[in-house]
Amino acid sequence: MQKVDVILKNALIVTMDQDERVLADGAIAISGNSIQAVGETKEITAEYKADETIDCAGKTITPGLVNSHTHAAMTLLRGLADDLRLDVWLLGYMMPVEREFVSPEFCRLGTLLGCAEMIRGGTTCFADMYYYEETVAEAAAEAGIRAICGQTVLKFPSPDAESYEDALDYARSYMEKWRDHPLVIPAIAPHAPYTTTDEILKACTELAMENWRETYDMPVVPWVKKLGLLDAKVVAAHCVHIDDGEIHTLQHAGTGISHNPSSNLKLASGFAPVTEMLETGLNVGVATDGPSSNNDLDMWEEMRLASFIAKAYGENPTALPAKTVFDMTTRMGAKALYLGDITGSLEAGKRADIILLDLQSVHNAPHFARSPDAVYSRLVYTAKATDVTDVMIDGKWVLRERQLQTIDLDPLLKEADEYAAKIDAFLIEREGSVLSKLIAIGGAEREESYEIQIKVRIPDAAPFVEKINSGEFEIVRTAHYLEYDTYFAFDAPEEYRLRYREDEFLNDEGEVFNVRYRLTLTGPAAEGEYHDAIFLSRSRFIAPAIHSLRFYQEYFNPASSIEVNKDRLRWQLRYEGVELFVNIDRLINPKLDCFFLEIKSRTWSRRDAQQKADKISSLLHTLGAGDSDTIRMEYPQIVVE
Amino acid sequence: MQKVDVILKNALIVTMDQDERVLADGAIAISGNSIQAVGETKEITAEYKADETIDCAGKTITPGLVNSHTHAAMTLLRGLADDLRLDVWLLGYMMPVEREFVSPEFCRLGTLLGCAEMIRGGTTCFADMYYYEETVAEAAAEAGIRAICGQTVLKFPSPDAESYEDALDYARSYMEKWRDHPLVIPAIAPHAPYTTTDEILKACTELAMENWRETYDMPVVPWVKKLGLLDAKVVAAHCVHIDDGEIHTLQHAGTGISHNPSSNLKLASGFAPVTEMLETGLNVGVATDGPSSNNDLDMWEEMRLASFIAKAYGENPTALPAKTVFDMTTRMGAKALYLGDITGSLEAGKRADIILLDLQSVHNAPHFARSPDAVYSRLVYTAKATDVTDVMIDGKWVLRERQLQTIDLDPLLKEADEYAAKIDAFLIEREGSVLSKLIAIGGAEREESYEIQIKVRIPDAAPFVEKINSGEFEIVRTAHYLEYDTYFAFDAPEEYRLRYREDEFLNDEGEVFNVRYRLTLTGPAAEGEYHDAIFLSRSRFIAPAIHSLRFYQEYFNPASSIEVNKDRLRWQLRYEGVELFVNIDRLINPKLDCFFLEIKSRTWSRRDAQQKADKISSLLHTLGAGDSDTIRMEYPQIVVE
Repeated sequence: MQKVDVILKNALIVTMDQDERVLADGAIAISGNSIQAVGETKEITAEYKADETIDCAGKTITPGLVNSHTHAAMTLLRGLADDLRLDVWLLGYMMPVEREFVSPEFCRLGTLLGCAEMIRGGTTCFADMYYYEETVAEAAAEAGIRAICGQTVLKFPSPDAESYEDALDYARSYMEKWRDHPLVIPAIAPHAPYTTTDEILKACTELAMENWRETYDMPVVPWVKKLGLLDAKVVAAHCVHIDDGEIHTLQHAGTGISHNPSSNLKLASGFAPVTEMLETGLNVGVATDGPSSNNDLDMWEEMRLASFIAKAYGENPTALPAKTVFDMTTRMGAKALYLGDITGSLEAGKRADIILLDLQSVHNAPHFARSPDAVYSRLVYTAKATDVTDVMIDGKWVLRERQLQTIDLDPLLKEADEYAAKIDAFLIEREGSVLSKLIAIGGAEREESYEIQIKVRIPDAAPFVEKINSGEFEIVRTAHYLEYDTYFAFDAPEEYRLRYREDEFLNDEGEVFNVRYRLTLTGPAAEGEYHDAIFLSRSRFIAPAIHSLRFYQEYFNPASSIEVNKDRLRWQLRYEGVELFVNIDRLINPKLDCFFLEIKSRTWSRRDAQQKADKISSLLHTLGAGDSDTIRMEYPQIVVE
Repeated sequence: MQKVDVILKNALIVTMDQDERVLADGAIAISGNSIQAVGETKEITAEYKADETIDCAGKTITPGLVNSHTHAAMTLLRGLADDLRLDVWLLGYMMPVEREFVSPEFCRLGTLLGCAEMIRGGTTCFADMYYYEETVAEAAAEAGIRAICGQTVLKFPSPDAESYEDALDYARSYMEKWRDHPLVIPAIAPHAPYTTTDEILKACTELAMENWRETYDMPVVPWVKKLGLLDAKVVAAHCVHIDDGEIHTLQHAGTGISHNPSSNLKLASGFAPVTEMLETGLNVGVATDGPSSNNDLDMWEEMRLASFIAKAYGENPTALPAKTVFDMTTRMGAKALYLGDITGSLEAGKRADIILLDLQSVHNAPHFARSPDAVYSRLVYTAKATDVTDVMIDGKWVLRERQLQTIDLDPLLKEADEYAAKIDAFLIEREGSVLSKLIAIGGAEREESYEIQIKVRIPDAAPFVEKINSGEFEIVRTAHYLEYDTYFAFDAPEEYRLRYREDEFLNDEGEVFNVRYRLTLTGPAAEGEYHDAIFLSRSRFIAPAIHSLRFYQEYFNPASSIEVNKDRLRWQLRYEGVELFVNIDRLINPKLDCFFLEIKSRTWSRRDAQQKADKISSLLHTLGAGDSDTIRMEYPQIVVE
């Protein structure tokens, strides 16, 4: 009789081995971190003698689940912001909060909580990508869970790197340090096509090619292929926007795929062509993605959903049957992560990554046995994460009778709620101020404190244009543009107003030769009148508008918004020693039958403002416009009236 | 101080009342079966004094969930047959098994198990439709759960009714008996457009109009409107195939809608236009459908999925936000069932249908409080059925600290597994025999035991046609048709062969004037030769083919199948006192360059078979065909060679 450490016996065992054996009364012999043998209980107990033999009667045993793509530390951001578009969610909430809060401590806490949830739900291996990934690696090792930990690389500054060069340096030293760890495999993870560059991908490829594994998130297949990325061991997550050609390229390169059903649905990213990828021969794993876009780390929900979506999307209820999905979540999932030799099935020689389930509860009843596939139906369509009772990873128990063995949860949960309170406070402050929100998504430049302006309604533009161009004035610059403005107003006491402006610059032929997108945030104005010029003291910030109007609309969520489109002729001219702007505006939308003449200036100095108000008033008379037509409203008000 | 029976205090209360109040430290005062007051703990405890005050610190309290469409008793069929098309699943598995096993005992057991699962998951009200619905009603009442129990009406015989008239009679007496029950509301439930008729719908409407409620499953809106059905209180389940016009018709009629996310996906029925229905003002509830197409009764999974699908299907991640889904599952769900006055929210005057959840576990951490919607995110995107700790229905506890109060589960689970074993045995026997499978889906008629036939290859048809039509023979009948045959073969030892045949009958102008679909099942043949005629003794069954070829292909799952299409001229003629069939066949697909002459007969008598073999041989010579061209193969073999 051979001596082993542990025998688990008398269980229904779903091996996911080559022959897909399902043993009605099976046993597993385990020595050290590895499986010695899997077979009928009477065979195993006849052949092996163990220090500890555990009677698993009534239990179902399967390989541990493989979560092929997540951001475990984002557990701390679960439920922070939901029902938002990807860009608003990511750029408006996740990244600003991450910039403020993500630290090694944050990553350690979040990862430990994520590991606790994954272990309790039967996940024994996960592929992670986040910041401070060495801390993630440390937390995973502490929790005793198998993990591929990928250091994120972004083109813009991230919580753990001022530049992508810093991120690559961090990744290099981290990967060197962790290359021989028994549980954790270090990796590098360029984030997404819209957050990376050619240089970053090439550098990542070089790092990964030095014999390390990597997790990787990039659906633009031909691009990454050209950059050599597919020569490395790549795991491509999401893959919702790939076509047949791309599928074949990935298959040819042997790329592992990670399918993220909940996250793809929740963020409306699309439907991944999973059936097609499987038919082509790709190894497709299943994954939760991060808990802030899911909102949990429950692989049982993902399995169920993977099958359901494939059926509905393919209009074929026979698509992705339960057994295939269970394969994707165990054996094939391990292969997709290039860990097929180590984990993903219960067979001699593989690591002992094993889970026990109690499928005797009412939601799993009754038990049909007619079809050999019935057990997969039970696992995929009815089992819950909370049915997992025991989890062994690498030969060590990390969950026994639903009790975590490696993680002391209570202090962590307390810490998590402290973080939540701090993040709540940060966001409450930010959300309370349009300026803070503007700064949170990329900052804004403060402009001159004083604005002096006068506006008069004029029946016709021509005489004024003629007068301005008569040579009487020193013209510094002229411009002609179409201005598409959207003004966001906010409820009192918030008196900020935010303008989103698209400027189309027109040449002499009236053709658009340049476009500019800008945000202008104006604070409440302290108004004063000086002769006939209005003079305003108010805070004013401008920022390039790098996102869409829709993004800002959703992100700032204004109480109301007003559209004003106009055709503007603008002169920057020197008048009696001061520089002033003269605008002749025609409202296109809403269409008005008159023109407006505006004279404007800005300054940091109150005294200067008063002087300029004099000059503006004087110029107005010189141009021949009457005082009586002075309009004290700005365009959004004019439009509303 | 007012006296009440129970006060629940110190909980986070999500009221779902008109103002959608969320009370961070709330309390509920309950008297008898009703809620007396809901408010801040200090207000309630100052105003009310209770026999029992329960400290719910750390708990979240919400209205009980409303499952707006299910077949609770089908719990007993959970996991029986998955990954199949709707028709194969329903007509090939569910209905045959139901015909065999569904009885009052079955319905009682299945419903009690279903109620146990629903109660444990926080469902306090469900709309059911099944057979023996009075038994379902009794079981629901016993479990102490609120239910609308709809007696199914089908056009064909069902487990509880030989005809739809019987079903209507049953429904009438059941509905009269239960009309005043405090928990159960009797209803009538015509199944689906493809299983009902005009007469049934009219009769159902009349029954339901007698002031009773009904649950109802019928997406063909104009049809049911014409039949007056929408005048009754209708709940329309699934509604995946309705257009804008139909949505408006339903809205106008005030019809309640039941959305079944899991079931619609799993059976690939389609995507219900939920966002559009909500925008139109329809009351849309959420539902599990039966546990055999889901495969559970977990409303938390349905909520999450309802939101996810709406986002992905509408390509809009802001669609169906968590709060809306929670509304659909509580207040609006109750309205969809015409129970909005009674249940669905926590407010004074409504019945005390209340659930307590422990959302402190790791998969719900951390807790953000910044947005008032955060609690709905937690409930919809992360809470699990197993987070429900206590359930009160109609003022009575049915779950206390996760222990069922009204149902003794263990003996029921044992009984369920006994049923499963019996159903397994039934299906194993049926699946073991093509004949049993054929009988299971509608029966087959046995044909004559003996078949005598001869087949010869002929170079040209014309001389034979001329000879047969020469007047020399007494011709009883002639026909000309195109035959589209598909032969299913099964692995040995199963030697049955099943033929699916479409006959297109042609008139003299070669136009199709009639079509016939038939299944013919032939058993293994004992072959004998008598002169040059083959004579076969074999079992042979015919049945009208009422389903599609695809249905039979999936249902019978043959090892292989062969297609043979031919053009057949057929004579039924009297020759020397016996009736024989003469066929002249031309193979169209696969195309062959020759013709085949067949002479055939069938009989129940062995002696008669021998005599007919003589006559067939004689007729063959009379027609001028040579013995040497005799072919001993049937068409599938010819085609394969």
